[in-house]
Amino acid sequence: MNLETCIKLDRRDELADLKNRFIIPEDVIYLDGNSLGPLLAIVKERVNDTVNREWGTDLITSWNKNDWINLPVTVGEKIAKLIGAAPGQVLCADSVSVNLFKVLAAALTLRPERNVVLSSDDNFPTDLYMAQGLTKLRGNDYELRVVDPEEVLAQLSDSVAVLMLTEVNFKSGKRWDMKAVNTAAHAAGVLVIWDLSHSIGAVPVELDHCMTDFAVGCGYKYLNGGPGAPAFVYVAERHQDVQQPLSGWMGHVRPFDFRQDYEPADGIRRFSSGTPGIIGMSALDAAMNIWEEIDVVSVQQKSESLATVIRERLRHEAAFSNLELFGPGPGPEGGSQISMRHPNAYGIVQAMIERGVIGDFRAPNIVRFGLCPLFLSHVDVYNAMNRMAEVIKSKAYEDPRFSSRAFVT
Amino acid sequence: MNLETCIKLDRRDELADLKNRFIIPEDVIYLDGNSLGPLLAIVKERVNDTVNREWGTDLITSWNKNDWINLPVTVGEKIAKLIGAAPGQVLCADSVSVNLFKVLAAALTLRPERNVVLSSDDNFPTDLYMAQGLTKLRGNDYELRVVDPEEVLAQLSDSVAVLMLTEVNFKSGKRWDMKAVNTAAHAAGVLVIWDLSHSIGAVPVELDHCMTDFAVGCGYKYLNGGPGAPAFVYVAERHQDVQQPLSGWMGHVRPFDFRQDYEPADGIRRFSSGTPGIIGMSALDAAMNIWEEIDVVSVQQKSESLATVIRERLRHEAAFSNLELFGPGPGPEGGSQISMRHPNAYGIVQAMIERGVIGDFRAPNIVRFGLCPLFLSHVDVYNAMNRMAEVIKSKAYEDPRFSSRAFVT
Repeated sequence: MNLETCIKLDRRDELADLKNRFIIPEDVIYLDGNSLGPLLAIVKERVNDTVNREWGTDLITSWNKNDWINLPVTVGEKIAKLIGAAPGQVLCADSVSVNLFKVLAAALTLRPERNVVLSSDDNFPTDLYMAQGLTKLRGNDYELRVVDPEEVLAQLSDSVAVLMLTEVNFKSGKRWDMKAVNTAAHAAGVLVIWDLSHSIGAVPVELDHCMTDFAVGCGYKYLNGGPGAPAFVYVAERHQDVQQPLSGWMGHVRPFDFRQDYEPADGIRRFSSGTPGIIGMSALDAAMNIWEEIDVVSVQQKSESLATVIRERLRHEAAFSNLELFGPGPGPEGGSQISMRHPNAYGIVQAMIERGVIGDFRAPNIVRFGLCPLFLSHVDVYNAMNRMAEVIKSKAYEDPRFSSRAFVT
Repeated sequence: MNLETCIKLDRRDELADLKNRFIIPEDVIYLDGNSLGPLLAIVKERVNDTVNREWGTDLITSWNKNDWINLPVTVGEKIAKLIGAAPGQVLCADSVSVNLFKVLAAALTLRPERNVVLSSDDNFPTDLYMAQGLTKLRGNDYELRVVDPEEVLAQLSDSVAVLMLTEVNFKSGKRWDMKAVNTAAHAAGVLVIWDLSHSIGAVPVELDHCMTDFAVGCGYKYLNGGPGAPAFVYVAERHQDVQQPLSGWMGHVRPFDFRQDYEPADGIRRFSSGTPGIIGMSALDAAMNIWEEIDVVSVQQKSESLATVIRERLRHEAAFSNLELFGPGPGPEGGSQISMRHPNAYGIVQAMIERGVIGDFRAPNIVRFGLCPLFLSHVDVYNAMNRMAEVIKSKAYEDPRFSSRAFVT
């Protein structure tokens, strides 16, 4: 694997031109689009328009005139197309955490005789935390049971109401077989909630086909919706009669009648709560447009191809002898990230950031690179590995400034 | 009350120049800042900077470099100054609805032997809806009791855990006496949650002085934070040991350790849930800066003065004979809005909007004008009343296009 090979691969890459849609500093190789997707030019324009024309000029009339009132559904439908959901099942709203609370509470009401929420101990922490909050609120009868991922299927039983999993693991990149899990869970009468935060925009997802019950996911990673972009929630049509407890006015059947009693809207709208943040949601709305031109299967294929550059170099170069691949990486069993263990992971990531290659660190010892095919080339990945080799050879990671860890998300 | 008087009043107005900070179309008189505050030039600049420099250029490193990680606290502290809260008690987060759920659930755990949530039947509906959602989730023991506002204090008893009120009513503009209510409630062992959505930025609020327990409020009305701007939550220091159930990772003591178990952060941070929307929160952060120059007492005084223009004209002009003042209007017992009943309220509001005067309608028959002193002059209000007189005299409100009501917020 050398530079020439990478140049050739880039020449054959059908997605290569998409990177021109993004505004990324020229001296940066950005391997963290799986944590915060970069800025699309169309998003920059849209935020300008939302702020200046819609808010600044049309003011309050924008709720009708510029259809702010339907934005959660408009964006939801764009997201739906990317995750194999028929219309009417996806809504853009709130954060992943808050949406998870809604669907978990709703799912529990569908299994009133069962009292266990099951999850894996490598699930993304906020999912576990929200389930802890909800089970505690529901009282002593409810229990969050967190087990080793290998044990999950064996733990399905008639006391389990809901199984809650993140499809692609945030550290290892390992991907569950959604259809197989759903089938096993449903056979035991268990409902499943999927967190798609690290799947959407990275790998093909087929929610309806897999008979998925509920899902949530993130707008600021592979969807490039901006920092803290609103999240989404999917509720299969067959479950939409259920009520969720964060029953704010935007989920009311007639919010502007200002009635005293809550009466939920039909369908997915009842999963709305308070007033949505319009600027952030407009940014995500614009960012979704790029998916009209792209097949996510090609995206996944390119991500595998980018990963090959890393895998080959790890295999053959002495500088990387202490780096150990962690998780499957891009491919049928993995998401679009590649994770590596190294005793000096934190320092390596920080030293690389100073050299213009932005990846991230996950405790305790993981270097994580997001291989986002929309804006990365094989040459980018090749050059990033060069930079990493330099950091390791020079021991730049030993810089005392990297001894205490700052927040990095 | 004639034009000349209004011009004189404007000449003496110390807040008159502030309107130059806003970007409002020249042909518009905007009487809906109490529903969606208009765009400040400083906010426009800040959103540009957040999108282009912070997100576009600094990318993921902005969580540290541009202190996104502390933004909820930074904005919270600016809000705190406006509502008489000492530092460490206010956080910017989520929506009013979601924040209300957090504090109501938390408050109930402080009164475990009590099972009633008390509120007034004229409270803002989403507050009632959220309480309905929570009490239903908590089970049959819990009850939301909604009574006539006149009956609220008489209903305080040792079965009531929490009293939940909106300080300034969204329809009538009527204002509760916060200190008196808190005192009566506390004497009965009842905790109080105040919704400040229609108070903050309109009237002086003194949460600590009034011994307030909990409060929530809105960022997109008098704070001019933008459409669907994030909300805020106040928790008195003495109650901050309590846990709220929407326990997402941003409220964890060490979110980036990614531990399996939730351990709440000390203080107000534990009222965070998921990842905050940074673009929207940055807009509100910038909008808050104007309050460093303004005393909210002067704001309230000007609002009273603006209301005098309306009151005088209603009293003396035949065109307004079918308009009936509803609620106290600006003054010691009211917020910064003036509400009027008219059988053709909806048509009047719509016809005025077409003539460049934007107010709003509240079911079933209320014309509501927000008198926001930061950008309105006495002449503006005078001219708005002229426009209203024209609409009423010409019966422009009878236009068949106004027969069916569209969404207006």
